[in-house]
Amino acid sequence: MDLKPLLSHIELELQKQVSRLDQPRSKNFHEMLTYHMGWTGEGAGPEATGKRIRPLLVLLTTASCEADWQSALPAAAAVELVHNFSLVHDDIQDNSPKRRGRDTTWVKWGAPMAINAGDALFVMSNQAIIDLKNSYPAEIVVKAAEVLHNTCLELTRGQFLDMSYEERKDLGVEDYWPMISGKTSALLSACCHIGALLGGADEDKQEAYRSFGHFLGLAFQVQDDILGIWGDEKATGKSVASDLVEGKNSLPVLAGLRKKGKFAERWAQGPIKPEEVEELARVLASEDGYGFAKEASIQMTDMAINSLREVDPQGEAGEALFELANKLLNREQ
Amino acid sequence: MDLKPLLSHIELELQKQVSRLDQPRSKNFHEMLTYHMGWTGEGAGPEATGKRIRPLLVLLTTASCEADWQSALPAAAAVELVHNFSLVHDDIQDNSPKRRGRDTTWVKWGAPMAINAGDALFVMSNQAIIDLKNSYPAEIVVKAAEVLHNTCLELTRGQFLDMSYEERKDLGVEDYWPMISGKTSALLSACCHIGALLGGADEDKQEAYRSFGHFLGLAFQVQDDILGIWGDEKATGKSVASDLVEGKNSLPVLAGLRKKGKFAERWAQGPIKPEEVEELARVLASEDGYGFAKEASIQMTDMAINSLREVDPQGEAGEALFELANKLLNREQ
Repeated sequence: MDLKPLLSHIELELQKQVSRLDQPRSKNFHEMLTYHMGWTGEGAGPEATGKRIRPLLVLLTTASCEADWQSALPAAAAVELVHNFSLVHDDIQDNSPKRRGRDTTWVKWGAPMAINAGDALFVMSNQAIIDLKNSYPAEIVVKAAEVLHNTCLELTRGQFLDMSYEERKDLGVEDYWPMISGKTSALLSACCHIGALLGGADEDKQEAYRSFGHFLGLAFQVQDDILGIWGDEKATGKSVASDLVEGKNSLPVLAGLRKKGKFAERWAQGPIKPEEVEELARVLASEDGYGFAKEASIQMTDMAINSLREVDPQGEAGEALFELANKLLNREQ
Repeated sequence: MDLKPLLSHIELELQKQVSRLDQPRSKNFHEMLTYHMGWTGEGAGPEATGKRIRPLLVLLTTASCEADWQSALPAAAAVELVHNFSLVHDDIQDNSPKRRGRDTTWVKWGAPMAINAGDALFVMSNQAIIDLKNSYPAEIVVKAAEVLHNTCLELTRGQFLDMSYEERKDLGVEDYWPMISGKTSALLSACCHIGALLGGADEDKQEAYRSFGHFLGLAFQVQDDILGIWGDEKATGKSVASDLVEGKNSLPVLAGLRKKGKFAERWAQGPIKPEEVEELARVLASEDGYGFAKEASIQMTDMAINSLREVDPQGEAGEALFELANKLLNREQ
């Protein structure tokens, strides 16, 4: 299936949603959002927008239920706006200067403005989901909104866990899953859940799609963690060193700590310097950090693909869902 | 009308909404919210919760349409949660250490956690408005959510204007109204609009209630600006000096600047020190800053009260709306 028409419609719908702030007194505010979304400013373009995986998941899910994906566009925009709201706030919280190779919103406009820009993207996600009322019965709109909001609460909960883990030294692998379930998996689940709802799927089928999104999210995050330590800086667009330097409790790190070896010893001594990263990544790999995470990634990927097989998505969109999942889970960036 | 039953139901509904985070791994996160809401931690109690004016407005409006206010409780909680989300983020943006006489959320837990706590309150407002589905048809829920979301966008727009004004030296009184329309008035409008919608009022009547809320908001904010310079610190619970020290472009300041007198001269020279405040407030009053704002406050108050008369709210709740408006607009704190 050719994804280009979907991607261009997603972009148009997002621009329409964000244009709500394109008013006389708030041009500069609008510009913060169009910059973050990758449409304007230095480095604007396809590299800066991100891959729009979440809205694609919504539309492909709807289409794979043999329903019209165009009607689902506001929901596709909604999930992408939620994702982007969380990125803007995340970058402030993590003090990250770069996102997709560009200065982050808070670097360009300061944290107070960036907090507000994130809030506006969040509001727009709510407005977008309500726009479904133009194509669906109000009961469906309410249900879609409910799924979205419950997901957003999981997002904030995952973010809380992530930040509170920064100060803890006693974390185990078992603490990892609740955090990434909230931070990454919840929104991907919601994409598939809402897509199925809008596709007219019954509750069992909605649940099966949701499950696919859940495991896809887990697999995706574990891979992201691996790339954050052993990835290629040019391909990922962010500093590879960052995950170790930032002290991120990623799965490889938590797995490596269990060995109580050289990695654990160095980790306990405090912040890692950029020049130590290369050697420390090697030590972590030799102490099973890489192997454990890779194994988990393979397991989660299998569970995602199996869930998708159970759903039995229809037509070209169904094939595209398999392709998207495979592409995401064998990615280099 | 005795407001106590309404106030206790509002508090219970808010606690129910916020309890969504009262789960094993997120106890500390839940605590951030219950602290901010004024229920737990140092200084918890009625002084710390705020007056719950917004939810009261929702319930009284619904009741004054001769409908059951209890069904509207989730909407009452929603507007109060929006208000509190904006306070949490506002305190970070303004670098304010105190709120209602207590340490602000970011002071206690740091800005990253406080950003996330604000986000969670925002999510909960969305969840609360959807909870209306238990008592109202889905079409009404969608409409209420739409009003709430549009309002939230106005809030972020007002916040943008407020922050962007900080760097501008050319502001006039005419720049003031769009800012406070967003920051203060939009949410009070929404309270009355949603209250009327849930009360079964027709569109004209909803619009009239909305208009009452709008002018009430403008009058309220102008008065807040006056209190921020000439108020009593003990009564307002925040430093009176703060508005001048923070360089806030309040109505008295913008009005005073027009005189191009001693106040404008000192204001142009940069930040005001706390020890200068008393004398500068006197200068500003002598250069029409107080008089102009007081006059505007009286005008907006008249418009609010006239709007309410036109609406002709019914019963004890109608009387309570007049009382609430009068109390708000003759307040000392």
